[in-house]
Amino acid sequence: MYQVSIPRFVHMLDNLATILDKAQAYAEAKKIDAKVLPASRLFPDMLPLTSQVRIACDTAKRAAAMLAGVDNPVYEDNETTIPELKARVEKTIAFLNTIRPAQIDGTEGKEIVVKVGGQDTPFKGMQFLLARAIPNFYFHVATAYDILRHNGLDVGKKDFLGNTTAS
Amino acid sequence: MYQVSIPRFVHMLDNLATILDKAQAYAEAKKIDAKVLPASRLFPDMLPLTSQVRIACDTAKRAAAMLAGVDNPVYEDNETTIPELKARVEKTIAFLNTIRPAQIDGTEGKEIVVKVGGQDTPFKGMQFLLARAIPNFYFHVATAYDILRHNGLDVGKKDFLGNTTAS
Repeated sequence: MYQVSIPRFVHMLDNLATILDKAQAYAEAKKIDAKVLPASRLFPDMLPLTSQVRIACDTAKRAAAMLAGVDNPVYEDNETTIPELKARVEKTIAFLNTIRPAQIDGTEGKEIVVKVGGQDTPFKGMQFLLARAIPNFYFHVATAYDILRHNGLDVGKKDFLGNTTAS
Repeated sequence: MYQVSIPRFVHMLDNLATILDKAQAYAEAKKIDAKVLPASRLFPDMLPLTSQVRIACDTAKRAAAMLAGVDNPVYEDNETTIPELKARVEKTIAFLNTIRPAQIDGTEGKEIVVKVGGQDTPFKGMQFLLARAIPNFYFHVATAYDILRHNGLDVGKKDFLGNTTAS
């Protein structure tokens, strides 16, 4: 349970932080107003980059907190620039790094109750992690990448995957 | 190893098949030429929907075959329409469903050699699955979704996640 969650979340968020650094350098080089990329979307009724980054962070943070049985730190949703989004990613990584393997391992059968379609829905820990937290997490990290790529940022899948041999 | 791989790949590919059905219905209703959505991209030098679907399928198929130690079936890359892409997804699901838990469980330490940056690179089975196959798989499923969403398909994250309580 620990191996498939915390180190993976941390690694992908590290990659996302690096992609955000590249986005910031790109915006500065192109003189793109600081608010433009964070507000960018792939479709008008789809969430913007800001929300994609926040939800990626919050999905990892909440899964870690619920499985480990510790308080889920609340972060204010007040980021409007790329460096602020990167700070949220780094804050999330710092929290994830406080979780020890022994707090997550063995939670396969732990009851986790989350809202699904507005209803409190019980999950076993493994089902919650594999069927909800992980796909949700990757969805938002990939969509953050896709929004930036769609806006011309020169990144590739190796930026998304990061160093897979050492992670 | 089995729980984090085969059932997850099958579930997400099932969701992708349903999204492709909706894309086909949308293209027909809007009289969008059958070749348009499969060739759509988020940026000119990014891969089109066709490749995103193929690579999602092939990532799951290859990971399953390498971990289980069975032949990796080769599929011709000849799809040009949404129903053809859906057929590839279904063919991949059928292959994945031939893999039994005992073939995947216990492969955490199995040596898997894959090309990284053109170089043969050895991985342990768990590292290969968690650091390469799974992020790569989700990247392409999410990007397929994002391309269709960007092109106006009315889907939401519940289409991406599917039924998480029964999967």
